[in-house]
Amino acid sequence: MCQLLGMNCATPTDITFSFRGFSQRAGITSDHCDGFGIAFFEDKACRLFVDNQSAVESPIAELIRNYPIKSRNVIAHIRKATQGKITLENSHPFVRELWGRQWIFAHNGDLHGFEPTLSGRFTPIGNTDSELSFCYLLDQLVQKFGYEEPSLDQIFDLLLEVSPKIAEHGTFNFCLSNGKALFSYAVTKLHWLVREYPFQPAQLVDLDVEVDFSQHTTPEDRVAVITTEPLTQNEKWIVYKPGEMILFQHGQPIRKESTYIERLERERLNPELKRITKADQY
Amino acid sequence: MCQLLGMNCATPTDITFSFRGFSQRAGITSDHCDGFGIAFFEDKACRLFVDNQSAVESPIAELIRNYPIKSRNVIAHIRKATQGKITLENSHPFVRELWGRQWIFAHNGDLHGFEPTLSGRFTPIGNTDSELSFCYLLDQLVQKFGYEEPSLDQIFDLLLEVSPKIAEHGTFNFCLSNGKALFSYAVTKLHWLVREYPFQPAQLVDLDVEVDFSQHTTPEDRVAVITTEPLTQNEKWIVYKPGEMILFQHGQPIRKESTYIERLERERLNPELKRITKADQY
Repeated sequence: MCQLLGMNCATPTDITFSFRGFSQRAGITSDHCDGFGIAFFEDKACRLFVDNQSAVESPIAELIRNYPIKSRNVIAHIRKATQGKITLENSHPFVRELWGRQWIFAHNGDLHGFEPTLSGRFTPIGNTDSELSFCYLLDQLVQKFGYEEPSLDQIFDLLLEVSPKIAEHGTFNFCLSNGKALFSYAVTKLHWLVREYPFQPAQLVDLDVEVDFSQHTTPEDRVAVITTEPLTQNEKWIVYKPGEMILFQHGQPIRKESTYIERLERERLNPELKRITKADQY
Repeated sequence: MCQLLGMNCATPTDITFSFRGFSQRAGITSDHCDGFGIAFFEDKACRLFVDNQSAVESPIAELIRNYPIKSRNVIAHIRKATQGKITLENSHPFVRELWGRQWIFAHNGDLHGFEPTLSGRFTPIGNTDSELSFCYLLDQLVQKFGYEEPSLDQIFDLLLEVSPKIAEHGTFNFCLSNGKALFSYAVTKLHWLVREYPFQPAQLVDLDVEVDFSQHTTPEDRVAVITTEPLTQNEKWIVYKPGEMILFQHGQPIRKESTYIERLERERLNPELKRITKADQY
């Protein structure tokens, strides 16, 4: 398995505090040592740093802990390989261009027997289930909307329709961003919180470090943080419901929906439905 | 204008020596200060580092000068902005996925009145003529070959057909790689050389640094270096002919062709031809 870290902000913000704690899990407080990656959006483009060394040992991770890159949308990932070799091409986050902007995706979980037919518009470079699911999601977006960029709500609707079908193949928690907003989805484990005025001190779980955000912020700042396991011990992290999708923009959730529980309930009442959904899903 | 640096190698090789000299041109020995970028392939995937700070000041460039990332195909670029703002999205090299591998492109030159119609398969993220020409080249590849990856020779043929048409709009020197090989094209200025056994010492032009490659290499190593201006003072750099395209693989040129001179000659004899070609080219 892997761990995810996402950040969506009202104003360009650096992630050094959260990344310092998060990257400890790549060998010190946990064993997610099989590569790491982090993507920082600046408008429609992003900087993507990936390494197949652990986030503890990588000189690239060291740079990121010390070089405050400011961004409104950040996605990071530390990997514990379950499928696919420890190579650069299998390191999250993955990137593709669509509608004249970068799209960044990172996945936590494992998919089995997930073999969708792709159009060829997006092709995996490596051999992870994760990159395959990313290509499939983008492929579905293009098949639905063609070359006209849809609204965030339209993208949300499609992701909410397709993601539970992918999740039938295993564990599917992800963060996805196009630089405008951050889409997140959790079936098993993901947490989020919003830091906003009046800001408070926060203390990392993985490292004996505390930051008093009120010293470094203005009332206009607002930051949503999404993570597999809570990063701080004195803040209130909210657990995602099973199958919940949350869209973050300007540092706060702007839409939340969960179809998973309702669908499970429908399937419990009518087992035939599950078979049909599975057969029909690609 | 900008400056290009490309490297194609028989065995994974680090570029720290050449990049140390090259990056001096971003403010010390020249004024290419408006961002830099460098991409290192590892098989089908690549690490891309871009920054809108100069390669002299950027902490990311500092990392690259000191962290020997080994690769068979590297493309680097330092920018002096002529078109497009100094933003991340306008920093070369540009990256796109095609046929399940990354493609990396960097351009030296300026294009005017280049307004091709794109299919939507590849869309520029920024607003440079360079990224537009990259999207156009990839678009032409997909239009010709669809979703089946062609051979290097087939790609070469198409690039050799399309590039001179783009070059009618101005200066079009580029390096392009898909991780298998490196395509290079020059209308006005580009140089190359091959370093191979028996290796010799080399002395940078931009910095008082000499490396004796015979101390750091084996007879299996072979490195082709492509650059706008020669990087060393004691090696024999070969100048590209106007309109010459050279394909490098395993650290050496495997195909060289130039259609430009023949075409200019044809157009000189029949000026009407030029008008027709221009009108008909997209």
